[in-house]
Amino acid sequence: MPSQMLTDYLQKRKKLIADDRALRVDHVRANYTAAELKADEVVRAIRAREAESVWGVEREDVPHPYPGMEFLNAKDIILETDLYSKIVSKMPKGGLLHVHQNASVEARALLDLALAHPAIHIRVPGPFNASSRETVLPDIQPIPAERYPAADAVGITDASYTGGWVPIKKAQELFDPALGGPAGFDKWVLSSFVINPSDAFRTYNTPMKIWLKFGSTFAVTDPIIRFVPIQKEYLRSFVRSSIKDGISYIEVRTNFFTKHILAEDAKTKVGLRELLLIFQEVTNEIKAELKAEGREDEFAGLKIIYNTLRIVSPEVLEAELDQCARFKQEFPDLIAGKFHGFYWSHGEESKPLIYYAEPLLHFAEQHPDIPFLFHAGETLGDGTAADMNLYDAILLGTKRIGHGFSLIKHPKLMEICREKKIAIEVCPISNEVLRLTSSMPMHPLPVIMNQGIPVVLSSDDPASFNSMGLSFDFFQVLVASEVTGLLTLGQMARDSITYSMLDERSKQEAMEAWERRWDKFIEEVAGMNP
Amino acid sequence: MPSQMLTDYLQKRKKLIADDRALRVDHVRANYTAAELKADEVVRAIRAREAESVWGVEREDVPHPYPGMEFLNAKDIILETDLYSKIVSKMPKGGLLHVHQNASVEARALLDLALAHPAIHIRVPGPFNASSRETVLPDIQPIPAERYPAADAVGITDASYTGGWVPIKKAQELFDPALGGPAGFDKWVLSSFVINPSDAFRTYNTPMKIWLKFGSTFAVTDPIIRFVPIQKEYLRSFVRSSIKDGISYIEVRTNFFTKHILAEDAKTKVGLRELLLIFQEVTNEIKAELKAEGREDEFAGLKIIYNTLRIVSPEVLEAELDQCARFKQEFPDLIAGKFHGFYWSHGEESKPLIYYAEPLLHFAEQHPDIPFLFHAGETLGDGTAADMNLYDAILLGTKRIGHGFSLIKHPKLMEICREKKIAIEVCPISNEVLRLTSSMPMHPLPVIMNQGIPVVLSSDDPASFNSMGLSFDFFQVLVASEVTGLLTLGQMARDSITYSMLDERSKQEAMEAWERRWDKFIEEVAGMNP
Repeated sequence: MPSQMLTDYLQKRKKLIADDRALRVDHVRANYTAAELKADEVVRAIRAREAESVWGVEREDVPHPYPGMEFLNAKDIILETDLYSKIVSKMPKGGLLHVHQNASVEARALLDLALAHPAIHIRVPGPFNASSRETVLPDIQPIPAERYPAADAVGITDASYTGGWVPIKKAQELFDPALGGPAGFDKWVLSSFVINPSDAFRTYNTPMKIWLKFGSTFAVTDPIIRFVPIQKEYLRSFVRSSIKDGISYIEVRTNFFTKHILAEDAKTKVGLRELLLIFQEVTNEIKAELKAEGREDEFAGLKIIYNTLRIVSPEVLEAELDQCARFKQEFPDLIAGKFHGFYWSHGEESKPLIYYAEPLLHFAEQHPDIPFLFHAGETLGDGTAADMNLYDAILLGTKRIGHGFSLIKHPKLMEICREKKIAIEVCPISNEVLRLTSSMPMHPLPVIMNQGIPVVLSSDDPASFNSMGLSFDFFQVLVASEVTGLLTLGQMARDSITYSMLDERSKQEAMEAWERRWDKFIEEVAGMNP
Repeated sequence: MPSQMLTDYLQKRKKLIADDRALRVDHVRANYTAAELKADEVVRAIRAREAESVWGVEREDVPHPYPGMEFLNAKDIILETDLYSKIVSKMPKGGLLHVHQNASVEARALLDLALAHPAIHIRVPGPFNASSRETVLPDIQPIPAERYPAADAVGITDASYTGGWVPIKKAQELFDPALGGPAGFDKWVLSSFVINPSDAFRTYNTPMKIWLKFGSTFAVTDPIIRFVPIQKEYLRSFVRSSIKDGISYIEVRTNFFTKHILAEDAKTKVGLRELLLIFQEVTNEIKAELKAEGREDEFAGLKIIYNTLRIVSPEVLEAELDQCARFKQEFPDLIAGKFHGFYWSHGEESKPLIYYAEPLLHFAEQHPDIPFLFHAGETLGDGTAADMNLYDAILLGTKRIGHGFSLIKHPKLMEICREKKIAIEVCPISNEVLRLTSSMPMHPLPVIMNQGIPVVLSSDDPASFNSMGLSFDFFQVLVASEVTGLLTLGQMARDSITYSMLDERSKQEAMEAWERRWDKFIEEVAGMNP
C-alpha cells in the first residue's frame, strides 16, 4: 500500500498534469460519449500494437523505421498499417482549408490527363539520353493544332531529335526501350512533378535548397493545368478525391498572379473570370451528383482564396486587391478571402508583409467583408523577415495563419491567437518534406495545441509531396504523440469547420453533416477488435 | 512620407514586438553600457558578413553549409570563422553546469594518456584486419604487471595474434602498415571514443539508434579513465582545457553507480571516497597554480553532482542516497547536489522518476541541504515516460532541469519554471548530435528563452561529440537566431553563475570576477573592425 506521502504526491501530480493540458482542444470538451471514449481506446491500442509490430521491425527498404518518420520514406509502411487503412483513412476530416490549387491532384492522374489530350506536347533541349534523366526537366504544354509537328516526327530519345514539340503520348510510346520505354518515360516525367526522397534527403536536403526543387515542380506542371479542358478535369479530380478521403469542404488557394489561362484551342487567352466560372461549374456539378445519390453530407462546397505572389510592387498589389474585390462582388459565395500569397525562392527572399502594409491597411478598411488569410512564419528563422511576418499578419487582422511554424517562439502572439481564436493552418507533411522539421516528433504542433490555439490540419501541396487527401497528415500527427488520440483528431476536424470562411448558416449545416458522419464512424471504430 | 495610418501601425508593431520579447533575459536587463551595445553591433555585423562569405559558399567537403547546421559536419567551417576565433572562443563563459565527467576530455588527449601509461593494454577478438575496422570495438584496460604479456608478443594485426592483451603503445607501433600503421591505429581507436558523422547521419541516424553508438563510446573509454593515475590526469586536463575556453566554474556529474576505481597497481579496487579526494586535490592544485599566476578570476572551483543510473531498484536507490548524504557530510563544498541520473538505452527504457518517488520524497524531507538536479524531458516524445519526467522533476523540487528539451510542450510547467526560477540546462550540440533536433534553427531554445525561463548552456558529453569547452555550443546558439546576440550570451553566462550551486558568498565572488573579465572582453570586441 502506498504511503500517505506518495498518495498525496500522486494527487498533486494528477492535478498538475490536468492543469498543464487544460487548454488543449481535446481537454476543453468534456462531454465525450461512451462510444467516443471506447473508440479512442481502440485507436490507442492499435497504435501501441503497430508501434512494435510495424514500426519496430527493421526492413531492407526503409532503414530504422519509427512512427512519425519522414513521410516520403514512410509512405509504403503507413499504407500497411491498420491505423491508416481501417481508422484514419475512413475518418470524416471536415474542411481542407490550406491547399494550393496547382498542386492538388496526384502526379499520376495529371500525367494521365496530359496523355489523353491531343494538344499536350513535350520538348527537351535535344536528344534525351540516360544522363538527361537526372538533369533535364520536361517542357510540357498545350499547343494549337497548326503548330502540331509532322506525323512522322521522331521521339525525344531519337538521335535525330532536334528539340521540337512532340505529342506527349507519342513521346511516351517512342521513349527509348533502353531507358525503360513508356514506363521509363512516365517515371522520369513523374519525378519532375513531385519531390522525391532523393531530392529531400540528398540533393536538396536543407530548408533553403529544397525550394529549388519545389519551385521546379510548379514550373513543370502549371502550363499543363492552366489549359481550360485540363483545368476542369483537374479540378474535378481534386474535389472527387478529396471527398473520397473524407474531406467535406474545401478552401483552395488559387493563384491570380498570372492573368489568363489558355482556351480549348490552346491559343486564345481567357481571363481569370473564366477560371472562377469553372470552379463554380465543377462545384455545382459535384454537389448535384452527390445529392442525386443521397450523399449531400459528404460535401458542403468549395471556396477560393485569392492568391497572388509577394514579389509584386505595392502598386501592383493594389490592382490585385481591386480585382479580388471585384470578383468577390460577382461571386460572393465563391471567394472566401484574400490570401496575400508569397513567393519563396531560395530561402526567404519574398517581400515581407510589412512591405505591403499601406495597401493592405487601406483594403482592410474598405473591404471588411473580405478577410485576410495570410501565410506567416513558415520558417526556421528567429527574428528573420518570414518570422516577423507573424507580427504583421496578426496586426493586419488575419483570420487564420497559414503555417505559423515559428509561432511557438512568440508568447504574446500565442496569447493573441488563443484569445482572438486565430486558427493555425498546420501542414505537417509539407513542413517535413520542405525540411522545416526532420520528422513529426520534432514538429511544433503539440506546443501550439497545448497553448490552446485552434489548429486545422492541412495538406498544402499534396501533389508535390505525394500525400493526397488529409489522411496522411492526420496519420503523422496521430502516431507522433501519446497525448493526442482519435478524439483530438475529431476536435481538429470540428475546428476546420468552425474556423472556415463558410457563412454561419452553411457552417452549421456542414457541422451537423459532419457530426452525423462522425457518430457513424465512431460506432464502427468502437466496435473494432484492436 | 508615411501616412498617419502607417505611422500608427508602425507604432503598434513596435510595441507588440517589445511585449512579445519582454520576458527574454536580454530584454529584462535595461542598463547595458555603451561598450556593450557597440560590441553587440560588431558581433551582429560579423555574423551577417560571414553568413554570406562563409556559410553562403558551396564547398566540396560540406554540401549546402548554413549557419547552425549539424555540428559534426560544420566544425571545420566554424573554426574558420572570425565569429568563433575572435569572439566566441574568447568570451568568458561563466559556469559549466551540465557535463558528464567520463566524457569531458578530448578523445586525442585521452588516447595520449593511455599510450603514455605502461599498464594500459588492448585486446580484440582475434587478428585485426581491414573489415574489423567498421565492426570491432577495442577493449582497452589497465592490467597488473604480473599479467603483462611476454616481450615478444605480436601486435593485434599479426596473423598469429590470438586475442590476448598487448600493451597499447606496442599495438599502435605494430599496427599493420597496410591498415595505416600507427596513424591507422589511432584513427580506428579514436573513432570508437566519439560519435562520428557517419554514425550520426548514416548508421544510427535516429534518436533511438544513436544511443547504441553513444553508449559504446562510454563502454570503451570508462575502463581507461577509472584508473587512479589516468583519472587524475584526465581531470586535470578537463579543468585546464575548460579554463582555457573561458569556463570559470564547473559542476560535473560523476557516476557513482560503479563502486570502485582501480588503484595504480591496476589490481586493488579503491572506493569512491578516493575519487572524491582526487577531485579535491586536483581542484586545489589548479586553484593554487592560478593564484600564483595572479589568475584567480579565471576559476572559482569545481563541484560534483552525485550521479547514479536509473536502472536500479528503489531499494538500491535508497542506499545510493545514503552514500550521497554521507559524502556530502564529509565533503560539504565538493558535493553540489544529488543528480538522479538516468540510463538511456535504445530509446527511453530507463526507469521513470515516478518509479522512485517514495525514496526521493523521503530524501528531500531528510536532506533539504542536498538539492535535486534532475535530467528530464530529454526526448522527442509527447506524453512518453521521459516527457512525463518533467512533471516529477518539478514536483520533487528540482533546482534545475537537465535538458528539458520537451518542456516547451508544457505551458503550466513553463510558468512554474519561470516563477520558481528553475533554470534549464540546455545542451545544444548534444541534442543535435543525439538527433533530437537536426540543426540549431530547429532547436527549441528560443521558445524557452522567450518564455522568460532561465537558461544555462551546457556541453553534456563534449568528448563524445568532439565539442570541447562551451565555445561551440555558444557559437551554434549565436548563429541560429537574429534575435540573440552577444548580450544574450552574456546574460546566459551570468545566469550560469546565478543558478549554480555555489554558496551565496562564493557566487558573489565568482560573479564579480566574471564581470571584470566581461568588461575587458567587451572593450576588446567593441574596438574591433567588423
